[in-house]
Amino acid sequence: MKYDIAVLAGDYIGPEVMKAALEVLAKLSDEKDSFGFHEALVGGSAIDATGKALPAETLKTAEGAHAILFGSVGGPKWEHLPPAEQPERASLLPLRKHFSLYANLRPAIIYKELKEASPLRADIVGDGLDILILRELTGDVYFGEPKLRRGEGANEEALDTMIYKRYEIERIAHLAFQSARLRRKIVHSIDKANVLTSMVFWREVVTQVAKEYPDVTLHHQYVDNAAMQLIRWPSQFDVVLCPNMFGDILSDEASQITGSIGMLASASLGEQNKWGRDGLQFGLYEPAGGTAPDIAGKGIANPIAQILSAALLLRYSLKLEDKAVRIENAVKSAIAAGARTRDLTADSAKAISTAEMTQEIVKRL
Amino acid sequence: MKYDIAVLAGDYIGPEVMKAALEVLAKLSDEKDSFGFHEALVGGSAIDATGKALPAETLKTAEGAHAILFGSVGGPKWEHLPPAEQPERASLLPLRKHFSLYANLRPAIIYKELKEASPLRADIVGDGLDILILRELTGDVYFGEPKLRRGEGANEEALDTMIYKRYEIERIAHLAFQSARLRRKIVHSIDKANVLTSMVFWREVVTQVAKEYPDVTLHHQYVDNAAMQLIRWPSQFDVVLCPNMFGDILSDEASQITGSIGMLASASLGEQNKWGRDGLQFGLYEPAGGTAPDIAGKGIANPIAQILSAALLLRYSLKLEDKAVRIENAVKSAIAAGARTRDLTADSAKAISTAEMTQEIVKRL
Ligand SMILES: CC(C)[C@H](C(=O)O)[C@@H](O)C(=O)O
Ligand SMILES: CC(C)[C@H](C(=O)O)[C@@H](O)C(=O)O
Repeated sequence: MKYDIAVLAGDYIGPEVMKAALEVLAKLSDEKDSFGFHEALVGGSAIDATGKALPAETLKTAEGAHAILFGSVGGPKWEHLPPAEQPERASLLPLRKHFSLYANLRPAIIYKELKEASPLRADIVGDGLDILILRELTGDVYFGEPKLRRGEGANEEALDTMIYKRYEIERIAHLAFQSARLRRKIVHSIDKANVLTSMVFWREVVTQVAKEYPDVTLHHQYVDNAAMQLIRWPSQFDVVLCPNMFGDILSDEASQITGSIGMLASASLGEQNKWGRDGLQFGLYEPAGGTAPDIAGKGIANPIAQILSAALLLRYSLKLEDKAVRIENAVKSAIAAGARTRDLTADSAKAISTAEMTQEIVKRL
Repeated sequence: MKYDIAVLAGDYIGPEVMKAALEVLAKLSDEKDSFGFHEALVGGSAIDATGKALPAETLKTAEGAHAILFGSVGGPKWEHLPPAEQPERASLLPLRKHFSLYANLRPAIIYKELKEASPLRADIVGDGLDILILRELTGDVYFGEPKLRRGEGANEEALDTMIYKRYEIERIAHLAFQSARLRRKIVHSIDKANVLTSMVFWREVVTQVAKEYPDVTLHHQYVDNAAMQLIRWPSQFDVVLCPNMFGDILSDEASQITGSIGMLASASLGEQNKWGRDGLQFGLYEPAGGTAPDIAGKGIANPIAQILSAALLLRYSLKLEDKAVRIENAVKSAIAAGARTRDLTADSAKAISTAEMTQEIVKRL
């Protein structure tokens, strides 16, 4: 089958690491499964070219594809824009909403060989870490209405609405328990049920869904406690199920704890809905890290997060599990063989370029 | 002058460490300044005795005092209660609201001698840390209305309202800049202005207030980024100004980073309002840590956070700066001399008891 992939590379190092990921995918193309790449502008470069971070043209390209491979967007060039018009926000939020990408999977993994990169003490990191942050992505205070500003003088006020519907909690909770079944069978559900009505509801619905998964252990943890526990004792976590806003914070904290943000991929999945062409699962795949403006254009960015995002795309959207595993194994083996981009080694003389790292991985596929 | 202090010791180790703090205060009592202690029930023990976590009687005691010295509340004994009726929530939130305690100061400090306790790598901790988290405490999604539940079936929903008024942001921002002036003159204001209307407003008002403090440098940081930066590069922070919900999360993360939660005190201050008897500043002072049920009754809890909370009470509410400094210096000197409760040393044979630590401090006052 021929699969159509919308390629939204974005800004600064975005196109550099995207090139690496496409090389990997091209290498995996064969008679049975081949990939068509459909490039489109997004983020700051799209603003420069069209005035919009997510041009209609780009949305059309994405709609026609089986999945989106996303690079990263934003940076100093667009910092003069108001926060709500920043490239990242102005492209990602509409994409999530348009395609109902309600489930954000962010694995936070420490590779054995890269343990020293973690900012945590060696005895806390232990043998490494493997946490899956599962963040709800289309509800909560992100999209809740009303959002408004009113009044004047000292009493002028601005408000957002933090809201969850039962079905929104149910579908992400099911995904959490199903994911945990393939892992260590532990789910930590994060809330603030001691203060928030929406979070009392969250806890209640998650608890109900849990009854269908008696083999999985469910813990409830307040978000403030979770922010501590991630640092103090990260290995207690397996699947961490988060509402949108808390998940935004905790997933970034967890990825920072690994010390290898250049290695972390993410997947944003929708329901098996109208965007799932050919019965496949539509999704958006992107690195956890940003556009790294300081090293853009130097050819030294770490392409691994983008390459692993392509692996997740193969797994979740195209159901090509074998090929996904081939990519992941090639990355592991390159790392084990000592291949290091500049972000992965203290010894900059040993660092290899983006292109070299890509070759190290491609040759091991 | 005779100062009246409401003493709300709470549960588990609460009364043990409170005893230590009162001993320190008693030692500082002299003809000029003396302290009257007015004990009252709070938290789980209050629920057991009266059915309420914050009995009317306790509120009356607090109203009659110049300030509240609070211990800690909650624990497994009351875990069967619904989250909203947990002792901590059911005592602290009404106290904050009743006394308009809008400013929560949580210093996150690493003592030179205790650097190894930090879960962060030694090169990140460097010479230590000294961050002041300033959390807004009476606005935001904590108290915003409406908070409600409605509908049924799959569309049943629950919502909270995240809201800020201009004067609420202004008063906490002024306090942030004033505090920064006495420190390194840097304020990081935390928001999520790229997504939330209330946070666009927060950023706007903080920026306006900053104009009155041209000698202080203001940075804006998104909350997800701040959660990473605290781990990656904590020494960039001096004063961290947070809205209520984000401050709840980041202050706990910051205190965990120090590795010495048993050393951290906090102050919650109101406006110079009707509760400020004799022109003094009403406030509530409490340790950052919890009730530590596992070690309760053993006489081994670290009393320092409670003792330092008493120092903050002297400083902010009673304006007895000299005596506050005497306590802080006595603590530093005891630590420098090697006094360690069990939480502060890996070598449990060297650990001293709560009473012994208290003596080490009292004799150095
Ligand atoms: C850019 C921003 C809107 C976005 C979010 O808050 O979700 C980002 O932080 C993320 O985590 O993908
Ligand atoms: C107990 C709870 C309501 C409280 C809060 O969220 O403010 C606590 O976590 C704190 O930080 O003091």
